[in-house]
Amino acid sequence: MASSELIARYHQIRKHTEDICSHLQTEDYVVQPVADVSPPKWHLGHTTWFFETFILKPYFMGYQEFNPNYNFVFNSYYETVGTRVIRTDRGNLSRPSVIDIYSYRGYVDKAMDDFLCAEPSIEVKELLILGFNHEQQHQELLYYDIKYILGNNPLFPAYNKAYHMPKLEKTGRDFIRISEGVYEVGYQGDDFCFDNELNRHKVYLNDFEISPDLVTNGEYLEFINANGYHDFRYWHMEGWGWVNDNKVECPMYWHNIDGEWHTYTFRGLEKLNLDEPVGHISYYEAYAYASWRGMRLPTEFEWEVAAPQLNWGHAWEWTESAYLPYPGFSKAPGAIGEYNGKFMVNQKVLRGASVATPPGHGRVTYRNFFHPNLRWLFNGIRLAK
Amino acid sequence: MASSELIARYHQIRKHTEDICSHLQTEDYVVQPVADVSPPKWHLGHTTWFFETFILKPYFMGYQEFNPNYNFVFNSYYETVGTRVIRTDRGNLSRPSVIDIYSYRGYVDKAMDDFLCAEPSIEVKELLILGFNHEQQHQELLYYDIKYILGNNPLFPAYNKAYHMPKLEKTGRDFIRISEGVYEVGYQGDDFCFDNELNRHKVYLNDFEISPDLVTNGEYLEFINANGYHDFRYWHMEGWGWVNDNKVECPMYWHNIDGEWHTYTFRGLEKLNLDEPVGHISYYEAYAYASWRGMRLPTEFEWEVAAPQLNWGHAWEWTESAYLPYPGFSKAPGAIGEYNGKFMVNQKVLRGASVATPPGHGRVTYRNFFHPNLRWLFNGIRLAK
Amino acid sequence: MASSELIARYHQIRKHTEDICSHLQTEDYVVQPVADVSPPKWHLGHTTWFFETFILKPYFMGYQEFNPNYNFVFNSYYETVGTRVIRTDRGNLSRPSVIDIYSYRGYVDKAMDDFLCAEPSIEVKELLILGFNHEQQHQELLYYDIKYILGNNPLFPAYNKAYHMPKLEKTGRDFIRISEGVYEVGYQGDDFCFDNELNRHKVYLNDFEISPDLVTNGEYLEFINANGYHDFRYWHMEGWGWVNDNKVECPMYWHNIDGEWHTYTFRGLEKLNLDEPVGHISYYEAYAYASWRGMRLPTEFEWEVAAPQLNWGHAWEWTESAYLPYPGFSKAPGAIGEYNGKFMVNQKVLRGASVATPPGHGRVTYRNFFHPNLRWLFNGIRLAK
Amino acid sequence: MASSELIARYHQIRKHTEDICSHLQTEDYVVQPVADVSPPKWHLGHTTWFFETFILKPYFMGYQEFNPNYNFVFNSYYETVGTRVIRTDRGNLSRPSVIDIYSYRGYVDKAMDDFLCAEPSIEVKELLILGFNHEQQHQELLYYDIKYILGNNPLFPAYNKAYHMPKLEKTGRDFIRISEGVYEVGYQGDDFCFDNELNRHKVYLNDFEISPDLVTNGEYLEFINANGYHDFRYWHMEGWGWVNDNKVECPMYWHNIDGEWHTYTFRGLEKLNLDEPVGHISYYEAYAYASWRGMRLPTEFEWEVAAPQLNWGHAWEWTESAYLPYPGFSKAPGAIGEYNGKFMVNQKVLRGASVATPPGHGRVTYRNFFHPNLRWLFNGIRLAK
Repeated sequence: MASSELIARYHQIRKHTEDICSHLQTEDYVVQPVADVSPPKWHLGHTTWFFETFILKPYFMGYQEFNPNYNFVFNSYYETVGTRVIRTDRGNLSRPSVIDIYSYRGYVDKAMDDFLCAEPSIEVKELLILGFNHEQQHQELLYYDIKYILGNNPLFPAYNKAYHMPKLEKTGRDFIRISEGVYEVGYQGDDFCFDNELNRHKVYLNDFEISPDLVTNGEYLEFINANGYHDFRYWHMEGWGWVNDNKVECPMYWHNIDGEWHTYTFRGLEKLNLDEPVGHISYYEAYAYASWRGMRLPTEFEWEVAAPQLNWGHAWEWTESAYLPYPGFSKAPGAIGEYNGKFMVNQKVLRGASVATPPGHGRVTYRNFFHPNLRWLFNGIRLAK
Repeated sequence: MASSELIARYHQIRKHTEDICSHLQTEDYVVQPVADVSPPKWHLGHTTWFFETFILKPYFMGYQEFNPNYNFVFNSYYETVGTRVIRTDRGNLSRPSVIDIYSYRGYVDKAMDDFLCAEPSIEVKELLILGFNHEQQHQELLYYDIKYILGNNPLFPAYNKAYHMPKLEKTGRDFIRISEGVYEVGYQGDDFCFDNELNRHKVYLNDFEISPDLVTNGEYLEFINANGYHDFRYWHMEGWGWVNDNKVECPMYWHNIDGEWHTYTFRGLEKLNLDEPVGHISYYEAYAYASWRGMRLPTEFEWEVAAPQLNWGHAWEWTESAYLPYPGFSKAPGAIGEYNGKFMVNQKVLRGASVATPPGHGRVTYRNFFHPNLRWLFNGIRLAK
Repeated sequence: MASSELIARYHQIRKHTEDICSHLQTEDYVVQPVADVSPPKWHLGHTTWFFETFILKPYFMGYQEFNPNYNFVFNSYYETVGTRVIRTDRGNLSRPSVIDIYSYRGYVDKAMDDFLCAEPSIEVKELLILGFNHEQQHQELLYYDIKYILGNNPLFPAYNKAYHMPKLEKTGRDFIRISEGVYEVGYQGDDFCFDNELNRHKVYLNDFEISPDLVTNGEYLEFINANGYHDFRYWHMEGWGWVNDNKVECPMYWHNIDGEWHTYTFRGLEKLNLDEPVGHISYYEAYAYASWRGMRLPTEFEWEVAAPQLNWGHAWEWTESAYLPYPGFSKAPGAIGEYNGKFMVNQKVLRGASVATPPGHGRVTYRNFFHPNLRWLFNGIRLAK
Repeated sequence: MASSELIARYHQIRKHTEDICSHLQTEDYVVQPVADVSPPKWHLGHTTWFFETFILKPYFMGYQEFNPNYNFVFNSYYETVGTRVIRTDRGNLSRPSVIDIYSYRGYVDKAMDDFLCAEPSIEVKELLILGFNHEQQHQELLYYDIKYILGNNPLFPAYNKAYHMPKLEKTGRDFIRISEGVYEVGYQGDDFCFDNELNRHKVYLNDFEISPDLVTNGEYLEFINANGYHDFRYWHMEGWGWVNDNKVECPMYWHNIDGEWHTYTFRGLEKLNLDEPVGHISYYEAYAYASWRGMRLPTEFEWEVAAPQLNWGHAWEWTESAYLPYPGFSKAPGAIGEYNGKFMVNQKVLRGASVATPPGHGRVTYRNFFHPNLRWLFNGIRLAK
């Protein structure tokens, strides 16, 4: 990418973040109802801190840091870069205020403009593109977190009454059959990918079948009505404990009001649409549902091999695969190396993309990962057998 | 009080609450860094809900509730009045917004104006005066909570750079001696008091001595420097556990920066003034300090009997007394009866008043009460022997 | 007491401890089902350690410690005497074995015999008498702990099928009326008492009435049947939280089997005797019961003044009083001073004695104390108004 | 296997369990110092309950259950078979006593003898062989649990002063190189294997190298001395949290006494032997160690393919693989189906066997699994690259 193109891309991405937040009231930027959710203002600051810390401070001679205390406030998990506010405390900070953080964004954006006037080195270009992808990941998290903040408020305020949820047409086709053999998986090409998608390597797959469609709300409701949440046989032991400890009876955001199922959407509380893909379920629930159907979830490699034949991109799809390094995986040195590798234990891979994924961010080799109990992400279920 | 006087008093008190908040930024209204602290916007709504729930709804014919969901959001602990947001979740609510809550205040204030045009019944007058005192208690809590919110922020923002802390001159006089005998304690008179100050009754006191002055920062520092926080002999077993579990080394808001003691005040972080009364200590610390001096804390009755000879009103003073009912104590029927009685276990009485106590709210018979580990209230130490 | 009398008393008390344990199987000596319960073998060791640590080691020249590691194992809460196994870990220790601990007892008893041949000093006599009373307190705790260990076992094994529970005849008399005035309370005399019973001092009591009888199981059942456990109005806020968090529906050891109430006794599971005093209730429950009856619990001073007219000694009676120091209370120097004073916060006083109290151990001025949520002690309810 | 052979095998295995316990004192059978450890008497009862529940009760006509309450006490995690004592409460039960449980064993053994006189059906034979393997797994757990119980006792009692730890000679050879290609893994044959070892299937492996030797104490000490426990770069984020929360500084059972490393063995506390394989480390530590060496742990398939060239059987070796179902995995119907499948989330596979594994129990395809933080099992580290 040429320098001018990089600047344009930089501004386009930075603006998209702020567009997402344009529907919020000041108070919505501040709260952190659970540890996994970050206050939107924190995302705004943290993504800015990323460019300041990894590009401006080391590479832009004479750059004056906006506020040295912000490193403490906006560092997420980079041990290399010093101490930080613990994650669960983010929602306790009323300052810096939203206006202060927008000033911070403006200040850093201006400095980035100045810095990118001159053609940057390859090393900086790579960091810049990582910064783009990093901010895009936080754009997606912003959607998750905003939905959680508003959807768990007893007043159920709308995010945007005009929000349009992309429709996903069900193909209604039979399961796709893939024959056993050696396949290649992992990223191939010269564009950006995360380190966890490398190296491209061979895997052996057995014969399998995979559904061309995602499981719908209506299909999932059959599982609920068949008492699936109360029958231990379909659950992992950990999942069964999770269901009972948390008294889980349905997907997150579902509410049974006078016998009728509703769900919170970005437009507010609405009647459940039975034809839409089910979402906001934990891996435990996805597994139990599949188990009840006498099927299973695909592995991430089955998914990747079948991907060209799937309509995907609507919701991150839980796979049976644990999040582990590919053969030959190695971490970059320094803080950037903390990006992916250190999370490779006790998490599950999700494949695909979601309606919240920014345009141009996804890839068929993309490996998303979350703990198996999490539901606030935009996810879904695809069956295999 | 005549009706016009009640209206004037109502508006004066309501305005004082908003004046306290006038120095806040919107974000400061929202957060709840620990369970004991409530978001300022919650106080604004809850005090309004009190008038709406206990006066307007039952007594003002044709009154239209502002928003039925607000009962769920702004009920504090009144089981009689229905379910409520659990206390630790108050800081998770971005809505109602600050503007919405000010609208709610305006709406209820207008209705109160209309309602109080006609002379209210005695019953309503009593509820009204209870509502005044209730809102004043929340004014004091607002100061505690705002200090906690800003004073625990890593940026240490000032609440009000022009804030003037009332000076308390040390008398330097000897301990006051009171002779043994039967004394009367508890509220006497026709004005308002809380139910926990009744009935006025006799107690027998032994000879005792009580200091005319509060313990200063400088005196407390001697305890710290004498290793008082590391010597179990001065502590209750529970206090010793609390000190060690929480790694407590000094009063709340104190920071030792490069060997010099600072403290957070409403003006920001400042050098510790050794002549000011020490504050923000738990009962455990107050007890340990007294114990180290070879003395003790006064009981609440010793305090009340000695009160006319004390300069008091600067900080709530921990007493040795547990918070228990007076002889003949009885609760009012209904929700109002939940005001005090149900807290009478495992709490300590504090006597006096503080710089945050609204004018006209205090009384020599006033019984404040908190759990022994709490430090965010404006408190202090007076010695007895 | 003469030396020979002291030796006789020593052996009588030591034997009583072992008699209590004579009904146990080895396994019963070992377990600690909850933090408040100690394994019986720990009591056997700890009471022995008390004599070894406070008498033999400092006063018996040439005494050879049985095993230096036992100090770590058998110290209870004496910070002065060094580190110790944390309380909740006592049930994790399979060694020293029961046989080892009986050897330890024999070894120390033998040394005590040798030591007491010579007339001991006054100081030693006082420690010895404290040791007697200390071991008697553990005898009572042994009964509580054994009942908990066996009574919470799903097999409900009997402690002793021939155990005879002393009967308490209900007087059926009216409430006793006591007139207001100045009364003296606290220990008076030359015999042993605990430091917390001193000093004898005057208190002023208002007119009050107190029941000559304890509340019976039948009377308490009326409270249960009137839905008392589900009506917040009778409870402290903390008590209400406790009831709901722990799903409490009846006293400890009660079981409703096919609609019929049973209770675990030392003889095993038996039908509930409606005429016996209710026991194993928390302070919260005692308070709620009294509150439901429109009455209250007596204060410890009301109790002490009325004591000569009460049939007492069946169960420790919850009072409304918090456990606080008497006027002029002072702690002994050294480890012995840790005996009582450091517990004087957040506990409630119980007065009387119980069927588990060793003969000769009680006194009308005796102040027992426990946290308000505890139920495994042998307690009961007496009403006042 | 013929019926007589089955009987002989039954008795041999049952005896081996009791032999392991023959060194214990009664008290050692009872305690449960942490949730993962079960009291030895529980293992004795539970393995007996397995034969009674799955063979005698359904298949042996007229069999009289020993004690119906034992199902509640000795069920481990079989939801199909009814409610049970929660796992963390096992150490709270003093009854059934050790003698009672040996009677239970004798009673069931006698019934099994009677039952096996007649040639059992194939179905019963399979259950019987599963029961053998089940009891052997508990034999191994008994060693882990006994070591934990005695090794965490402050007196460090020996299990057996004559215990002989098998020596593992270091080969000192270079890493073994395996070429990329398609390999077969999973159990093949007609003998017993667990359901999780099926189906045998093809996997694609890349070129890799694997060490013929386990990491020694001496090598691991280099990691400690290089400050490895204090350098976040070598750790997973979860591992780093675990190290810091638990203040981990060395493997379990290591003690640095006056600058010299010791370790608890079945003979008691001994000086650390630097040439022995390191053990009792969590997966987090194994990973961090490998990471510090610039290497990694093998996957379970690399391990299985290389197994014929490894000296294995000394300690269970942590692999990088998550515990997941093989292609075509299916659970048996009924309670037996709860054996393995429901644990297939958030656990790591270990391969090999240990000195505690009963003779004849291991297989090269055996998949052991534990949570990544656990250390009380007999484990070790093998490096790959």
